[in-house]
Amino acid sequence: MKLALDAMGGDFAPAINLEGAQLALSAFPDVKKIYLVGDETTLQKGCDGIGLASPRIEIVHAPEVVGMEESGLMAVRQKKNSSMSLAVDLVKNGTCDAVLSAGNTGAAVAASTIKLRLLEGVERAGIVTQLPNEYGVCNVTDTGANPDAKPTHLVGYAIMASIMARQIFGKPNPKVGLMSNGTEEGKGNEFTKDTLKLMRRLEAAGKLPFDFVGNVEGHDLFEHELDVVLTDGFTGNVLLKTCEATAKAFGKWLKAEIKASPVRMAGALMMKGAFNAMKLRLDANQTGGSPLLGVNGVSIIAHGSANSTAIFNAIRIANEMHRNGINPRIIEAMQKLGDISAA
Amino acid sequence: MKLALDAMGGDFAPAINLEGAQLALSAFPDVKKIYLVGDETTLQKGCDGIGLASPRIEIVHAPEVVGMEESGLMAVRQKKNSSMSLAVDLVKNGTCDAVLSAGNTGAAVAASTIKLRLLEGVERAGIVTQLPNEYGVCNVTDTGANPDAKPTHLVGYAIMASIMARQIFGKPNPKVGLMSNGTEEGKGNEFTKDTLKLMRRLEAAGKLPFDFVGNVEGHDLFEHELDVVLTDGFTGNVLLKTCEATAKAFGKWLKAEIKASPVRMAGALMMKGAFNAMKLRLDANQTGGSPLLGVNGVSIIAHGSANSTAIFNAIRIANEMHRNGINPRIIEAMQKLGDISAA
Repeated sequence: MKLALDAMGGDFAPAINLEGAQLALSAFPDVKKIYLVGDETTLQKGCDGIGLASPRIEIVHAPEVVGMEESGLMAVRQKKNSSMSLAVDLVKNGTCDAVLSAGNTGAAVAASTIKLRLLEGVERAGIVTQLPNEYGVCNVTDTGANPDAKPTHLVGYAIMASIMARQIFGKPNPKVGLMSNGTEEGKGNEFTKDTLKLMRRLEAAGKLPFDFVGNVEGHDLFEHELDVVLTDGFTGNVLLKTCEATAKAFGKWLKAEIKASPVRMAGALMMKGAFNAMKLRLDANQTGGSPLLGVNGVSIIAHGSANSTAIFNAIRIANEMHRNGINPRIIEAMQKLGDISAA
Repeated sequence: MKLALDAMGGDFAPAINLEGAQLALSAFPDVKKIYLVGDETTLQKGCDGIGLASPRIEIVHAPEVVGMEESGLMAVRQKKNSSMSLAVDLVKNGTCDAVLSAGNTGAAVAASTIKLRLLEGVERAGIVTQLPNEYGVCNVTDTGANPDAKPTHLVGYAIMASIMARQIFGKPNPKVGLMSNGTEEGKGNEFTKDTLKLMRRLEAAGKLPFDFVGNVEGHDLFEHELDVVLTDGFTGNVLLKTCEATAKAFGKWLKAEIKASPVRMAGALMMKGAFNAMKLRLDANQTGGSPLLGVNGVSIIAHGSANSTAIFNAIRIANEMHRNGINPRIIEAMQKLGDISAA
């Protein structure tokens, strides 16, 4: 696999990107090449600083950077020489198989969708994010690409994310649920009720290549065996950030309680192993990046606060998606599904 | 205050309701009377069992119970003699000031809305739930009454919840945010974008009796000073259950990590005080119940899994709402706001 890395993307760029690339090159022999896209002087200096020099590394100069607060669509239109735009171009012109950015999510979605275009049969691209649950991971999609989704978009997300669950997370018959405000069949808002009806019709017609479990609710996210949770990009984004915020507050408040007494602090020291294991389990950097499924090329979006471990893991995901032929499988599955607009 | 308690409501009814009533009677002298509504024989036996006998307690027989899985609207129409229906009737006919149920939420919303009707000037009722944050509590509304909300409904929720924040949680100038998928002004789905525009127009016209901070996101829930977070009942329900699920998973996984070694277990024992404080801080039973704001009477909805502490705290909230004249204040504020349909 050849990767285009938006080396200027992320709150801690470019250091995290260079370090992440270095880790990935030594861990994954089948990552043939990483193109570091960004300001040449800055990147060369950064590479020299950490001893990153390899025939598998190449710097591609990009004079502009997309800011985190910019409008995604405007950035793509106006900053044609941004590190993000040029990184996506490397996939578009066939130089690379995958692009990775920890920069402005809206801009990464817009650049990937506009430049790479959608895979045949895909109506809308969606971001899939992995949350740890008791059975491995739950692939939540869409977590932000498409805030005003239609029911047919969610069918596409279900097909695409279930391929991820099968090929990358080893679940031969993925369990797919629709996020709602209760598990009963009648629950939901107008949008999810319409989506549920459409899914049930496709299920009855034998068109769903996964185990559709119907409505699920927030309570099901971690303790129930769910491989894919479907939602519009607005709700998915709120859900994801609420998870992150709750886990962060829990950790922070517990730390404050521990600091309230020396005995508690001594106890916490004895529990260090448990806390470290929790940290690892909940650390979004272990997941690394969220694929934007449905575009013609592998496009991975990392968290703005990504560290080098996150970039390393995002490269791992890109590599696995490429190696397992996720996109050819999506095209095939969409062909099998056929036109569902009248379903 | 006189309270009608749906004594058959909740997963652990009637015990939790009787015990909660007993605690409240001894703690709040201004709770003049609690009507226990439900099967007379069962309730009398339950009262005898815990020594609950007082002139401030009266049992009102109700032969039917609404199941947790029933459709709310159907239950209200078909089970006219359910404990929930008869409890709401006691407010409707003026016998009581407030009704409390830990039963089927949909049925409690439907019964309260249909029988009590809306306060003058209120377009839709909404559930407000308190989440603990670093500044006290954040009043999230709506958390489930109205899954397909309109922008004008959210203006009403903002007015009503900010009165709660001011009168009950001691925030003279409540900070109110709109839950979105990012804090930038352009973020949102069509619904929240329209809501933001309406709020900004009302703000410019000097019509908002609180500090409107614009878009907020999931990350802002616990660490930022926010007294009210506005959302439609679908997203709010997903948000609330996601919080609960994340905190529960965090606690459960930490417990499993602790049990993995005797040293960790000894450390945890020394940290018992910290864990207990966390438990108390995150325990939804400490909040007790979520008011359904906008109906003509105080209506409190408790969690299905409520314990007696939750029922006690829900009675406390009902009492505070009555004493602080939340409903008269809502009517006054709505009158001041006037017609916003053309705003």
